[in-house]
Amino acid sequence: MNVGIIGAGQLGRMLALAAHRLGVRCRLFDTTPDACGGQVAELHVGEMSDRTALERFAAGLDVVSFEFENVPVEAAAWLAQRVPVHPSPAALAEAQDRLREKQHFKQLGIPVPTFAAVDSPGDAPALQAAVDQVGLPAILKTRRLGYDGKGQSRLTMPADVAAAGRALAGQPAIIEALVPFERELSLLAVRDRTGGLAYYPLVENVHLEGILRESRPAADAPAATLQKRAEEYASALLRSLDYVGVLALELFEVGGRLLANEMAPRVHNSGHWTIEGAETSQFENHLRAILGWPLGSTQVVGCPAMVNLVGALPDPAAVLAVPGAHLHRYGKAPRPRRKVGHITICAPDPRTRDQRLAALRRLL
Amino acid sequence: MNVGIIGAGQLGRMLALAAHRLGVRCRLFDTTPDACGGQVAELHVGEMSDRTALERFAAGLDVVSFEFENVPVEAAAWLAQRVPVHPSPAALAEAQDRLREKQHFKQLGIPVPTFAAVDSPGDAPALQAAVDQVGLPAILKTRRLGYDGKGQSRLTMPADVAAAGRALAGQPAIIEALVPFERELSLLAVRDRTGGLAYYPLVENVHLEGILRESRPAADAPAATLQKRAEEYASALLRSLDYVGVLALELFEVGGRLLANEMAPRVHNSGHWTIEGAETSQFENHLRAILGWPLGSTQVVGCPAMVNLVGALPDPAAVLAVPGAHLHRYGKAPRPRRKVGHITICAPDPRTRDQRLAALRRLL
Repeated sequence: MNVGIIGAGQLGRMLALAAHRLGVRCRLFDTTPDACGGQVAELHVGEMSDRTALERFAAGLDVVSFEFENVPVEAAAWLAQRVPVHPSPAALAEAQDRLREKQHFKQLGIPVPTFAAVDSPGDAPALQAAVDQVGLPAILKTRRLGYDGKGQSRLTMPADVAAAGRALAGQPAIIEALVPFERELSLLAVRDRTGGLAYYPLVENVHLEGILRESRPAADAPAATLQKRAEEYASALLRSLDYVGVLALELFEVGGRLLANEMAPRVHNSGHWTIEGAETSQFENHLRAILGWPLGSTQVVGCPAMVNLVGALPDPAAVLAVPGAHLHRYGKAPRPRRKVGHITICAPDPRTRDQRLAALRRLL
Repeated sequence: MNVGIIGAGQLGRMLALAAHRLGVRCRLFDTTPDACGGQVAELHVGEMSDRTALERFAAGLDVVSFEFENVPVEAAAWLAQRVPVHPSPAALAEAQDRLREKQHFKQLGIPVPTFAAVDSPGDAPALQAAVDQVGLPAILKTRRLGYDGKGQSRLTMPADVAAAGRALAGQPAIIEALVPFERELSLLAVRDRTGGLAYYPLVENVHLEGILRESRPAADAPAATLQKRAEEYASALLRSLDYVGVLALELFEVGGRLLANEMAPRVHNSGHWTIEGAETSQFENHLRAILGWPLGSTQVVGCPAMVNLVGALPDPAAVLAVPGAHLHRYGKAPRPRRKVGHITICAPDPRTRDQRLAALRRLL
């Protein structure tokens, strides 16, 4: 079997490593020749608009997937006429537009923060009307593109509105109420080609400056209660999109309820702990799904947690001296705000995990 | 860090995959361009006698290791003048000669089956004298080369001796008493660059036609008693060789005692279950050792077992439908007696493991 992945960053790299283990050939496509996935798998370099490059990439592949949600839908659709593409270009389109995504959630009965469309952010009265509808504090986001907090402005006071509107430079946007959440959670779900579904346990996430820093399966009683609800939401979503592969649903926990923030139609940073901390990793389960193979168990092994390495790499010997530490470096040159690796801590119980995490944090 | 591995078969391939995860660049060297490790890492092709090819291979590497014990010692020694080679060429030399190896075990007080040198197998009276010394049944083996039962003859009756002697075609040999063992065990040990040692639990191995078929950590009471003894033997061996890296010591369990059969100065097939079934795999621990990093925990996770895929590959979808099955395919074309992959079964308890193994065996 031959799998193609669009995008050769760390997610493509980890998908390729999971594929290698299974004896599945993996080919990556990226716009930059030094994409870190190219260190571990065949890399095709080209623009997504270059049909000749895409044609060469697709030759001989059994299935194509992607590691990031901003693959141009027309390129994915063009590929899908030649080779199965999972998740589908239609699912991709839904995830690329924050307004359509929120509307889709709402239609499925998945609760979301209050939101309003801002079609012309240059139109000050219209922007103000949207702010009034949602209330402050709020977040103004471009409808398309942006990740790790890019393309987003927080509106705390009425005086913030005008500058945030100008910063959008005319791009259509969405304004969302800033929710006073207790926790950020994510649910990693996977759907196979026959409609079979599996879910990892809800993951608790900690962000800093818009970048994910730590994730761990939420093993507490409130999370156990929320798990079923989250699975119902993900199930409705995956079915509605006839989705195949792993999807991450980002959620806020607010007063015992879950509000959907966004979905990522791909393997997700909040699932990296599954490599050592679950019976089957998100990467292998994504491959199993898109290849038409049975899904693997999503059961957690022990008490894992993940810490992202952002902007700098610690001394590997110091990291590996921490018991239960599993180091993943992506082969990327460090620079500010760049994810260059992660560490999974495995432990037999929460207390040991927290001790090991504390030892690890001292190194970062 | 840049690691070079001589040999790009499945062991080199799995070392490369462990290296990729750690963000360590891995370069392989093999005599054949289609060696399966070349599918997952940079591959240099050349003869071991080609110093220009070896020089090119060694350029920029921080450390060199190997995946098989029949690397010519002079080539390893030549490389060791340019870049650290672990394990050392001296350790390699000791493991390449079955007679020196047995003598080395004996000198260290490690019990071995009765053996005798056969310097000139064409000399019938000398061969008969060696047979008389050891007794029948016995195994006649070439001193050098041969693996998976190749270059070996079993002597059951006096009439077998002459033909077995002729089959050696003049190669120096060793004759060893055939031991009526209860079990074949192996101990995987690893020694770091500062002399620190770690051991995996004794592994129980089942061979068929000279090829390893199944391995699992031996979790019974007799094995627990033998563990300490086996670790003493391995410790003496590793220290005597100033060894760095993973070494496998193959043992026979005979009436509550351990007899050493042979050592493999490398990662070993009987340790493949450690990828999912131990906190740190043998591949990662070998890399940690040779890179001067701290060793990882060798603790077993659950009740794992490994089944080799020899000669043929089963349907991956059928394998992955068995709960707890982790499929490893090496990207090698199947042919008789060829190891083309393995499956690790993970289970929470021995009973579940045995049920899963039974389900798996029905597919092979």
